[in-house]
Amino acid sequence: MTPNIPDSPHKRLVIVGAGFAGLTLARQLAKRDDLQIVLLNKDNYHQFQPLFYQVAMAGLEPSSISFPLRKAFQSRKNVHIRVTDVKRVIPSRQVVVTDLGEIHYDYLAIATGADTNYFGMKEIEARALPMKSVSEALALRNRILQNFEDALTINSDEERTALLNVVVVGGGPTGVELAGTLAEMKKFILPKDYPELNFENMQVYLLEGMDQLLAAMSDESSEKSRRYLEDLGVKVMTGQVVTEFDGTCIKTKQGLKIRTHNLVWAAGVKASPLEGINPEVLGRGGRIKVDRYNRVEGYDTIFALGDVAMMVEEKYPNGHPQLAQPAMQQAKLLSKNIKRVLDGKKPEPFTYKDLGSMATVGRNRAVVDLPFLKFQGFLAWLTWMFVHLISIVGVKNRLLIFINWVWNYMTYDQSLRLIIKAKPPRIPKEPVPEEKVEAPAVVH
Amino acid sequence: MTPNIPDSPHKRLVIVGAGFAGLTLARQLAKRDDLQIVLLNKDNYHQFQPLFYQVAMAGLEPSSISFPLRKAFQSRKNVHIRVTDVKRVIPSRQVVVTDLGEIHYDYLAIATGADTNYFGMKEIEARALPMKSVSEALALRNRILQNFEDALTINSDEERTALLNVVVVGGGPTGVELAGTLAEMKKFILPKDYPELNFENMQVYLLEGMDQLLAAMSDESSEKSRRYLEDLGVKVMTGQVVTEFDGTCIKTKQGLKIRTHNLVWAAGVKASPLEGINPEVLGRGGRIKVDRYNRVEGYDTIFALGDVAMMVEEKYPNGHPQLAQPAMQQAKLLSKNIKRVLDGKKPEPFTYKDLGSMATVGRNRAVVDLPFLKFQGFLAWLTWMFVHLISIVGVKNRLLIFINWVWNYMTYDQSLRLIIKAKPPRIPKEPVPEEKVEAPAVVH
Repeated sequence: MTPNIPDSPHKRLVIVGAGFAGLTLARQLAKRDDLQIVLLNKDNYHQFQPLFYQVAMAGLEPSSISFPLRKAFQSRKNVHIRVTDVKRVIPSRQVVVTDLGEIHYDYLAIATGADTNYFGMKEIEARALPMKSVSEALALRNRILQNFEDALTINSDEERTALLNVVVVGGGPTGVELAGTLAEMKKFILPKDYPELNFENMQVYLLEGMDQLLAAMSDESSEKSRRYLEDLGVKVMTGQVVTEFDGTCIKTKQGLKIRTHNLVWAAGVKASPLEGINPEVLGRGGRIKVDRYNRVEGYDTIFALGDVAMMVEEKYPNGHPQLAQPAMQQAKLLSKNIKRVLDGKKPEPFTYKDLGSMATVGRNRAVVDLPFLKFQGFLAWLTWMFVHLISIVGVKNRLLIFINWVWNYMTYDQSLRLIIKAKPPRIPKEPVPEEKVEAPAVVH
Repeated sequence: MTPNIPDSPHKRLVIVGAGFAGLTLARQLAKRDDLQIVLLNKDNYHQFQPLFYQVAMAGLEPSSISFPLRKAFQSRKNVHIRVTDVKRVIPSRQVVVTDLGEIHYDYLAIATGADTNYFGMKEIEARALPMKSVSEALALRNRILQNFEDALTINSDEERTALLNVVVVGGGPTGVELAGTLAEMKKFILPKDYPELNFENMQVYLLEGMDQLLAAMSDESSEKSRRYLEDLGVKVMTGQVVTEFDGTCIKTKQGLKIRTHNLVWAAGVKASPLEGINPEVLGRGGRIKVDRYNRVEGYDTIFALGDVAMMVEEKYPNGHPQLAQPAMQQAKLLSKNIKRVLDGKKPEPFTYKDLGSMATVGRNRAVVDLPFLKFQGFLAWLTWMFVHLISIVGVKNRLLIFINWVWNYMTYDQSLRLIIKAKPPRIPKEPVPEEKVEAPAVVH
């Protein structure tokens, strides 16, 4: 195998990662015919992270929040997409090393994002359910649905409770949204689907190490989201740091024990920097330190942007929040700056414009913090839906998500409760059983 | 584990399989509170087989053609669904043996359907791509899409052609529909998605052992479908029986060789009867011989229906065609007969009413044989869509499929070109790496 990127008379920009940062950068630059763009990504699609929890909760299909990369760059002859893992960068030779071989770059943009942070707890990493990809969200969906099926087939009440209980760790937006949706499923859907089970035995827990939920938001939003969750029946426990999980029981540092088979881990992220970057420019959480032009400290031709980058501004001494907005804003300015440099002009420094943040808890319940306005409830919920709908890539995805939401709202139902088991891919050259093959006279 | 089916004062009907036959039977009887129904199925959903090929060709999502079984029987306390494999029946003790343990029946309905028939050719079974479940359809989609990615990364023209070529075996509706859709993808989508590849090197072949396509339909339909396919660029080859496939090349009995990594096997089906049924009542293709009341020969309390059953009528000396229509008609009458018997009345014998058959080749191109009318082309294509749309289970599925079809038609695009790799499920009790776990001071 070889990357097979054709030679070009133009400069080559290699972008690693097609999340919000990488995809935005590539799209903004795709029309520059005097730039060759190589976009490298693990999957052949972009994923819309803010809605992973709805995939996990059977409300949306993975495809509705995924967008094929090739569709975003159809007929662009200067854009070369390769689906591959990037192993490391060798700055001295200006190459990245991939599964397909080495690829030379003139400019490199690292947009590798962040992954689940287990804070070094291997026991939890081996058993908890993370939520940082559509694949992981699907796995969580299948696991929870399978648990209900399994709960029908055991006689021990204690074991059944452990199967049904779900402990969500992490009081950020993902944890809040997941716990709220689970509580709604328990209330509206599960008793109808499983009339044989008693769902009073099922508890949804939301555990958070700090003393409030949605710590990055306003106090009003933080308190309101807690009340919404408790109204829905979620057991919210703050100041609880989970440190042990043996597969059937979690324990916290504070001494709490909860029987459960299902630990959903949304407690934090750590950056996924590329190997080969000088470790001294890695900051807190593994983020790559960049200047206000997204240039990696100490490198002239390497940029980092999005969750993996740490750009310090006066208002953000620890870097920007690891969200879609900073990633997209950085990508937009970086694309402009690259165009400016190509045109012989001077680049401009970045300033983050905080557009606000929001989280949804359930039907008619959300919290919104805008720069000059905070509100909660039904209007916040409509705002949340509107903002997410217009942010998603692809008109068809928008339409399908809208229909799904209206449908689910009207019917109180998430209808995608399918445990679709993936068939392992067939390898053409796998060994054939020993039996002698005898051709039939006629196949039909 | 135990099946945990509660005792009931009423007779228990155990239905094995939730395809067209099993699901219809269960739905028709679900409202009889004086009957306990146990529905056993491998998956927790019903699959709409006629549209598998659209899932394989990235036109529809698996969820659009799947329907959660529990949703079909919400709040029905007399219906017990268990997701399990049924291994065999022990008629002398009136039990079926499942993964969950034994389940007693008063009446047993076997609706286990049919599976891909490789006619004993193990080499082909190990390497070909079948199309008898949504999982298999998804695997086919992922494989074909991955091939295009791989084709970008090799230098050998010969090998690239082998990756791109697709050989579809079997000239029935599935083979015809698949080959037609592939040819359209090659024409409308792939050159845009992969401007780096030359799709003149890709060939779609449709091979059939008999001397015509759609042999079960009229000669007009058969000839027209061939012309449609050839217009789209499909190489249709009849009278060719594939007997060998080493992973890179197929060979036919007639001496034809085609280089390809992709052999799609839609050449035939064989019934999946339950072990434990007297082998003497198994007819051609493994089908269970039943009388006109769907009673299995020699058993008073065991019924078989749908693809797995062979009911002989004067017009159908080899049993009914293995399609949705006979399955559903049999299920409807059997449900009526069971009600009649419960009410102390006499059952009625079955007569199959052929409502016609149809197949689609591509945009605006389909063939329809109704009992007194045959037509092809645009009107046939609309008819095909209408009939499939109203046949699918679930109003939301219908709506989503309709939107997808309209969208794909207008944009000449199948937009679900996502290779979503399934994450292996996490087992709660899997061993934990040896490293000592050190709890962090604060999780956040």
